[in-house]
Amino acid sequence: MVRVAIIGASGYTGADSIEILLRHPQAEVTYLTALPQECGHLGQLFGQFKGRLDLDVVPLDLDVLADKADVVLCCLPHKVSMGFVPKLLAAGCKVVDFSADYRIKDVAVYEKYYQEHTDQANLKVAAYGLPELYREQIRHTNLVANPGCFPTTAALACAPVLARGLVKTDTVIVNSVTGVSGGGKNPNVLFHFPNMNENLFAYGMGVHRHMPEIEQVVSDVAGAPVNVIFQPHAGPFDRGILSTVYMEPKEEVSAKDLMALYEDFYANERFVQICAGSPHLKNVSRTNYCHIFPTVVKNRVVIFSAIDNLVKGASGQAIQNMNILFGLDESLGLL
Amino acid sequence: MVRVAIIGASGYTGADSIEILLRHPQAEVTYLTALPQECGHLGQLFGQFKGRLDLDVVPLDLDVLADKADVVLCCLPHKVSMGFVPKLLAAGCKVVDFSADYRIKDVAVYEKYYQEHTDQANLKVAAYGLPELYREQIRHTNLVANPGCFPTTAALACAPVLARGLVKTDTVIVNSVTGVSGGGKNPNVLFHFPNMNENLFAYGMGVHRHMPEIEQVVSDVAGAPVNVIFQPHAGPFDRGILSTVYMEPKEEVSAKDLMALYEDFYANERFVQICAGSPHLKNVSRTNYCHIFPTVVKNRVVIFSAIDNLVKGASGQAIQNMNILFGLDESLGLL
Amino acid sequence: MVRVAIIGASGYTGADSIEILLRHPQAEVTYLTALPQECGHLGQLFGQFKGRLDLDVVPLDLDVLADKADVVLCCLPHKVSMGFVPKLLAAGCKVVDFSADYRIKDVAVYEKYYQEHTDQANLKVAAYGLPELYREQIRHTNLVANPGCFPTTAALACAPVLARGLVKTDTVIVNSVTGVSGGGKNPNVLFHFPNMNENLFAYGMGVHRHMPEIEQVVSDVAGAPVNVIFQPHAGPFDRGILSTVYMEPKEEVSAKDLMALYEDFYANERFVQICAGSPHLKNVSRTNYCHIFPTVVKNRVVIFSAIDNLVKGASGQAIQNMNILFGLDESLGLL
Amino acid sequence: MVRVAIIGASGYTGADSIEILLRHPQAEVTYLTALPQECGHLGQLFGQFKGRLDLDVVPLDLDVLADKADVVLCCLPHKVSMGFVPKLLAAGCKVVDFSADYRIKDVAVYEKYYQEHTDQANLKVAAYGLPELYREQIRHTNLVANPGCFPTTAALACAPVLARGLVKTDTVIVNSVTGVSGGGKNPNVLFHFPNMNENLFAYGMGVHRHMPEIEQVVSDVAGAPVNVIFQPHAGPFDRGILSTVYMEPKEEVSAKDLMALYEDFYANERFVQICAGSPHLKNVSRTNYCHIFPTVVKNRVVIFSAIDNLVKGASGQAIQNMNILFGLDESLGLL
Repeated sequence: MVRVAIIGASGYTGADSIEILLRHPQAEVTYLTALPQECGHLGQLFGQFKGRLDLDVVPLDLDVLADKADVVLCCLPHKVSMGFVPKLLAAGCKVVDFSADYRIKDVAVYEKYYQEHTDQANLKVAAYGLPELYREQIRHTNLVANPGCFPTTAALACAPVLARGLVKTDTVIVNSVTGVSGGGKNPNVLFHFPNMNENLFAYGMGVHRHMPEIEQVVSDVAGAPVNVIFQPHAGPFDRGILSTVYMEPKEEVSAKDLMALYEDFYANERFVQICAGSPHLKNVSRTNYCHIFPTVVKNRVVIFSAIDNLVKGASGQAIQNMNILFGLDESLGLL
Repeated sequence: MVRVAIIGASGYTGADSIEILLRHPQAEVTYLTALPQECGHLGQLFGQFKGRLDLDVVPLDLDVLADKADVVLCCLPHKVSMGFVPKLLAAGCKVVDFSADYRIKDVAVYEKYYQEHTDQANLKVAAYGLPELYREQIRHTNLVANPGCFPTTAALACAPVLARGLVKTDTVIVNSVTGVSGGGKNPNVLFHFPNMNENLFAYGMGVHRHMPEIEQVVSDVAGAPVNVIFQPHAGPFDRGILSTVYMEPKEEVSAKDLMALYEDFYANERFVQICAGSPHLKNVSRTNYCHIFPTVVKNRVVIFSAIDNLVKGASGQAIQNMNILFGLDESLGLL
Repeated sequence: MVRVAIIGASGYTGADSIEILLRHPQAEVTYLTALPQECGHLGQLFGQFKGRLDLDVVPLDLDVLADKADVVLCCLPHKVSMGFVPKLLAAGCKVVDFSADYRIKDVAVYEKYYQEHTDQANLKVAAYGLPELYREQIRHTNLVANPGCFPTTAALACAPVLARGLVKTDTVIVNSVTGVSGGGKNPNVLFHFPNMNENLFAYGMGVHRHMPEIEQVVSDVAGAPVNVIFQPHAGPFDRGILSTVYMEPKEEVSAKDLMALYEDFYANERFVQICAGSPHLKNVSRTNYCHIFPTVVKNRVVIFSAIDNLVKGASGQAIQNMNILFGLDESLGLL
Repeated sequence: MVRVAIIGASGYTGADSIEILLRHPQAEVTYLTALPQECGHLGQLFGQFKGRLDLDVVPLDLDVLADKADVVLCCLPHKVSMGFVPKLLAAGCKVVDFSADYRIKDVAVYEKYYQEHTDQANLKVAAYGLPELYREQIRHTNLVANPGCFPTTAALACAPVLARGLVKTDTVIVNSVTGVSGGGKNPNVLFHFPNMNENLFAYGMGVHRHMPEIEQVVSDVAGAPVNVIFQPHAGPFDRGILSTVYMEPKEEVSAKDLMALYEDFYANERFVQICAGSPHLKNVSRTNYCHIFPTVVKNRVVIFSAIDNLVKGASGQAIQNMNILFGLDESLGLL
């Protein structure tokens, strides 16, 4: 049994991690921590766990952690995370970190979009936790930087054509719509129900922090710098991201060839399914699957890619990574 | 042209009042006030008014008010309202007050559910603004206490059978479901989109302040004290209240006779429509109409009653009352 | 491994059964059937299963069934079901039947609300599949009549006070709101998104078929005939039922005593949780749990009871029953 | 008083037209027609009109029409419409046609995306009813082709930069999300509430009929052929379209200059408002306004444009056109 601690367990990604681990046959949640003001019995903090898991969420104690856990799902926010991760590793735990702190390999880029990086030593050894593209690195590390939700959809959408050099790299447009859970659990004016319900809007024009993360991954896949225009929108639903990616083919390509390429590229990837038409967000909801439909519209390759932002875009992918870290079947808990 | 000021214009009832008044052929919005921190150009405070009404929302100045307005829609919260209403009346304005401060005639009851009442003089002269039951009083006052949203549905549902003495008064059960706009515009945990969406829950068990208000009105109609069990719920939609009222008939009554009674009772009331089946909340949304379906289930009379909580349950009814105060066609702006 | 066939697998209860069984450690789906026009590969019929379960949905062949399955989840509609169940039993399978055909013990009542009963022999031996009340009967039968969704909420809400004789039996009012999945997968005008979204309405006044089912169960618990007024409503969400039950106490009872009674009554029932305030539908969504809050409002006992209509109200409860039939831990697949 | 007939009044655009006309001070609905099987009293066909407009919807009689109406809002589907429009004009009525039959000026393009065109004579004299771009033509015709909903958002978004020649014409990407009312009132599997709720998907890849319509308008504005990649999506809300348009500037342009250009271009257009950030769909809901935010992201001009698909995208724009046809203030009924 892999013993799992969740640090920062009081948010949505903590809750979804618990939900998945409750069904994991070879892992068990042993330790849950949060800020003191967010502590209490799990069933009181999250009504959906009442009677299902009898644990208290408590303030973090590193000694207790070292004693109770083999792996930490670190659900802390950016900046806070890199203050704790070195200690978690020092306590002898493997770590899957949900923050952006270990995702961006270029410190200058990280510091432009976030803040000063204070743990560059671990940044160097961290693996980017998108198993479909970085499985080998994940296998050989103790620290996984769990990818952002938008980058997961975008990278899986672009990888096959960029890896094969079929599209131009000067402008890849990623148009995404996310559900509201992506904004976290703290109430605010934008996500007050009577404001968000029946609404849809764009945000983060030109400045969203997932833009450089997408660029890093797809450039790595392409073997050359890729310029990404990333435009997120928020829509009136709880979960899911649908990304529509527009790319310019270097030479004419048929929808049929594209389909064959995608089916081949992901033939051995259980969690990526190639669809015959647009993915439906609802079909990936509460699953760890990414549904992709590649096609051609006139002079553009258009790829549709859908995930559940809290599962394949966060907690599910983290547990997929955890399974890899421990040499388990990658899909345990995620069927 | 009736010149209308809205005091406390920064909330949902203020916005809906403006929306209705924009289409009112004999009234115009001339003055909008709010707390200093909520002031600014209307089109910035409420994006839906951009380019539609070129007014600033400003802090209240009673002299300016006296100069600019014939009537005040007072959208202030309970307790705050009775601090201002005497001044608004003194400024020579008629007042439609949205708070509960002038609704409950029995000061002891008011003080039990709210707080000390500090304007009992005006409480005595205020009319309860449910035109279908109190039109004459409204015609002859300068101060209208605009009813609560739940009491509007409940009173209109119960009035015909209670007025005729057809049902027992010891226990009337009012089970209501409201949309989220009833909770106001301030973000909170309950109404954070990912919490409220796909959710439904009850609240205010035994203590909701609309319970004594309903009892006052239906007791008045019945000519005897009526005991009301009122249970509100909140559901995942913006607008509307559906109340399902269970009453015990004194003697057996047929659904057909009940239907005839309701059609007769409201024959001259434009804004109450008797339906042949359950009201649909969506059919009353953004209208000033109340849809009612009366029927019999075994040993109970069951009445279904639906309104838009922000229109017939607040701003629309206020403007209906305003029209009466000025001797205008009651439906102006409300078609 | 228990081998499970699902007959009528093309509807929502079939899909939810598959979803649960995918995570069941001691059961596997081996055979899926539907009407010929609804057959095909599972991943095409239900996009959410793409890549997750490689099975075809095929027309029923009883010989194949006998060969492949130990138990049948029979998701056929009323009337159709009792035409098949005798054959399923004859084929050597245990059966959990989702229809109403084996729920109503009084044939006259069944025939009044449904149609002629053509399998009274099996009706006699069928157990009513509400484990919290009928576990022993379920243990000793091969045929379980899986309860209706509304009756599950209502029976669990009423059982403690009726079993103890604390409330009057002449009038129990059950006011329920269900999500739209309860109406099945076939498109219709009422549930067309632009009609149902932002809507709420009542239906089935006095004639809903779950009324006699509720009466049967609560009368059985009370040891005396109970008259139930059951009023369902449909609300704009996918899943869940919240029932608000109003009962008249024989003698005054405190909220505190009521709470103690409920906690005691369900102390050993994992899937019934007693809450300290109103259940939130969202907290039981996609779980097999029933959340109950009992309280007192003036002269009425009021009980709030919430389930997911497709899980504890259908597929989850069916698998709970299946686990009992096979002597497994009742919660397998349902954590 | 302009007397208005609505042909094909039983759909969503008919209902919204009635809703608007009820508040129009100089127009009245005099005649409503539909297919025989969809006729009946208006308040029964659309519950929201109960008690608000006492008219029957009847089968079309051209003699009655000629007698009762000055103008026809023709809400018939494509192909059907061009069978009736010549007769409506012959009856002496002005016509605003909601179908695509008179929108596409190039018959070959029309026939490629739709079917044979059978009324080319009227096609030649019809004005494309986007007042912000074609007001003069509308003023001098009796037949207005009311634009498609997506083309309205796209054309208003692109017009300023294309008219000024600031962006390249080889590839304009229009990514749109529409509410479900755009799919009409007939129930179908895609829009069954439990399928559409919490869902989002793309459709019409490369073949949507609004693509050539957008191309016609923006090419006309640009004075040169523009290649448009148009990709629609459907989201879980009733009303509204948000289009995100990506264009490549010929030379570098600043967000500030772009903003100035848009404010200038639409300075005299009441129904187009330039916003300081992303439009919110909810702010244009049930209004005739288009909210636009133009900006620059790296090497792309990105324009966000939002309307209510049933108002500015259909019924509201039709009444704006009707007002122009009769020399009325363009905004009557639309404030």
